[in-house]
Amino acid sequence: MPPRPLAAGFEIGEDPGVAIVPPSKRPHLVIVGAGFGGLYAARALRRAEVRVTVIDRSNHHLFQPLLYQVATAVLNTGDIAAPIRAVLRSGNVAVILSEARSIDLERKRVICSHGEVAFDLLIVATGASHSYFGHDEWAGDAPGLKTLEDALRIRRRVLLAYELAEREADLPARRDWLTFVIVGGGPTGVELAGALAEIARHALARDFRNIDPTEARVILLEGQDRLLTAWPPELSDHARRSLERLGVQVRTGAMVTAVDGRGVGIGEERISARTVLWAAGVEASPLAKSLGAPLDRAGRVKVTPELTVPGREDVFVVGDLASLEIEGHPVPGLAGAAIQEGRHAARNVLRSARGQPLLPFRYRDRGAFAVIGRGAAVGVAFRRFRIHGFLAWVAWLLIHLLFLIGFRNRLSVLINWAYSFLTLRRHARLITGLPFGGEPRGPS
Amino acid sequence: MPPRPLAAGFEIGEDPGVAIVPPSKRPHLVIVGAGFGGLYAARALRRAEVRVTVIDRSNHHLFQPLLYQVATAVLNTGDIAAPIRAVLRSGNVAVILSEARSIDLERKRVICSHGEVAFDLLIVATGASHSYFGHDEWAGDAPGLKTLEDALRIRRRVLLAYELAEREADLPARRDWLTFVIVGGGPTGVELAGALAEIARHALARDFRNIDPTEARVILLEGQDRLLTAWPPELSDHARRSLERLGVQVRTGAMVTAVDGRGVGIGEERISARTVLWAAGVEASPLAKSLGAPLDRAGRVKVTPELTVPGREDVFVVGDLASLEIEGHPVPGLAGAAIQEGRHAARNVLRSARGQPLLPFRYRDRGAFAVIGRGAAVGVAFRRFRIHGFLAWVAWLLIHLLFLIGFRNRLSVLINWAYSFLTLRRHARLITGLPFGGEPRGPS
Repeated sequence: MPPRPLAAGFEIGEDPGVAIVPPSKRPHLVIVGAGFGGLYAARALRRAEVRVTVIDRSNHHLFQPLLYQVATAVLNTGDIAAPIRAVLRSGNVAVILSEARSIDLERKRVICSHGEVAFDLLIVATGASHSYFGHDEWAGDAPGLKTLEDALRIRRRVLLAYELAEREADLPARRDWLTFVIVGGGPTGVELAGALAEIARHALARDFRNIDPTEARVILLEGQDRLLTAWPPELSDHARRSLERLGVQVRTGAMVTAVDGRGVGIGEERISARTVLWAAGVEASPLAKSLGAPLDRAGRVKVTPELTVPGREDVFVVGDLASLEIEGHPVPGLAGAAIQEGRHAARNVLRSARGQPLLPFRYRDRGAFAVIGRGAAVGVAFRRFRIHGFLAWVAWLLIHLLFLIGFRNRLSVLINWAYSFLTLRRHARLITGLPFGGEPRGPS
Repeated sequence: MPPRPLAAGFEIGEDPGVAIVPPSKRPHLVIVGAGFGGLYAARALRRAEVRVTVIDRSNHHLFQPLLYQVATAVLNTGDIAAPIRAVLRSGNVAVILSEARSIDLERKRVICSHGEVAFDLLIVATGASHSYFGHDEWAGDAPGLKTLEDALRIRRRVLLAYELAEREADLPARRDWLTFVIVGGGPTGVELAGALAEIARHALARDFRNIDPTEARVILLEGQDRLLTAWPPELSDHARRSLERLGVQVRTGAMVTAVDGRGVGIGEERISARTVLWAAGVEASPLAKSLGAPLDRAGRVKVTPELTVPGREDVFVVGDLASLEIEGHPVPGLAGAAIQEGRHAARNVLRSARGQPLLPFRYRDRGAFAVIGRGAAVGVAFRRFRIHGFLAWVAWLLIHLLFLIGFRNRLSVLINWAYSFLTLRRHARLITGLPFGGEPRGPS
């Protein structure tokens, strides 16, 4: 790929490899989104000869793989989140708390909720969320899990369901409060189902007088014919058996066709449940649309092998917002992939600023795991090793501790895990944000 | 005081001291509120021959003396709260999540948001909150600190103020974002002011590019002529000097006459500030009114020396909701006093059930402390020893660790304190609950 002229607004020295460029003349890189892709790109560039501005609508980076543990009262919010400012404190990175609404590629500006930010180079990393498959009206009755607020909302609903069941004299109504439906059998759905079953069987078992929490039903619905479709079928079987051992009812081939505050419909059939959680589908951040590039079915930007928007060498897309196939294999929507893409985009940003040809991204598949419960997980490591059970669980723990940002968070997570593992209790069983105290209107 | 006949609905054996009463015949004690007073009463009775039901509108007991540390991002919500059910798991105590709306003394029922609960004996312990002195319309612009939600709201406002200052190009507007006013110079106000000054000077000092957090102004307003009026004047002086050393502007004799989203008025004078926090006044829970007993100016129930509502030996009031003078000294609104009252009411509940005369409450004043900052506190121990500085601070730490409920919370608080003390950082710097991402409308 031939070197291309630099974008207007900055210059660099004769030999870009060694010249010291005065800060004010350095190209301005804007990174939208401080998830794994954006944050690791910024970290890779904090000593480089670019000025970096990170824009995020939240003040914290979130370690999303552990978000379901906040939702299920194992961890505190503070354990899996770190202030973006604190993480990027040293170096040449500015952080702006604002929501990017759209991108004007022609004028090279990010249009934010607070105003416009001009860029020379851009990395878009605003990720993806779950998808209600065109039924956004289900969102209120079946919340998904993407932000800390989502996790606290789910925690509130789950804990409140037991409280309201305890108060409820009518037996069928009580049963509905004690029925938990999770839609979507991917990693998040599997992890939520396992954790909810453990809450019922262990954490809450002795805490109530009128109800028996171990009678709670946890039902996991998956539209396709097996759980964890991104993994090999044998691991799907393991996951299913492990969940069933915990008491989860797993139903595959179950397409949800209706959701309301009293349950879900699967075609003609109806499951009564006061708590429905959504863990299905993928829908890219709407920012993708303003990039004027081809999108895939989930709304993700089909990027070039160099991770750029087709036709631009100054605009990169990484993480869950990017859609890329390498040798026929799609790069998966995992934290590890986003980190690698973020770092690669950082490298290409510098090459672009120096007029050097961009390099194609190579994905190193180190593996992926899903936890089912205490001492049980399934996963594939390095594309080849399929592991399950206790070994997979230990591997999962170590990998997640390793990638958590900050010593403080690692220590705190480790303590909370040890506490849950040894006592079977849940430390973070707090309902916050009740609308009117213990109002009997049900969870919101 | 002569023994009185038992309330209808329960009987006890011939010799109430030793007889085993079948559980269904045991008198039913209802405790409203699981703060210090209610929780310690319930704990004292969990093996006694009464059936106990605890009603609270929240699912957690809150360790209020450390709430300001959640608001100022030192501690997580989970560190200072424990699920009431988990604390009262063993024994004969049922817990109901519901809001008590009023009390029908004639029919012996607590009217809750979810229905009615009948009682034979009652302990009311719903506490008190701050008071806007008839200006409840100030609550939105000057939030107080009483619940976990309050603490998260204050944390959000404070952290967001720095974020919005960073984005603000206009210098006077930026200055307003960096001005923090605290109304009320009691322990909560003093502790908040000290903590906010430390955030500005240490925790955030190096994290911004456009603003210098050390330029933030923290202004503490007190209507009377000194801070901490419940303490001896020499400790007020110490507190003031310690705060001023941290950079806090302390203004005594400053009566706030106006509050809005842009600042406060003190008579003719105006202080522009985008963050105003309220820590003044005392207003008892409105439940007091339905007890038909004489109330003091703050709306607290004037209880008998036995902690009962005058004229009743089956209805007790403890903690901040009770107003009691012993030998001319009012029992203070402190956690320690509430705990002692709760335990004493538990004792008298049993005596009432057995038809024995009730005993008057004696308050053991073990002391009270207020923290000003890292290594600085003031306090009085055992009515006689006035201490300040590092020694008082260590005493404060130890006392609070000792009274925190649960080993898990103690460990977590200890780690967070050690972290803050050693690194000067704030672990829990998370903004949650932003209305629309980083919307520039300002905090809500």
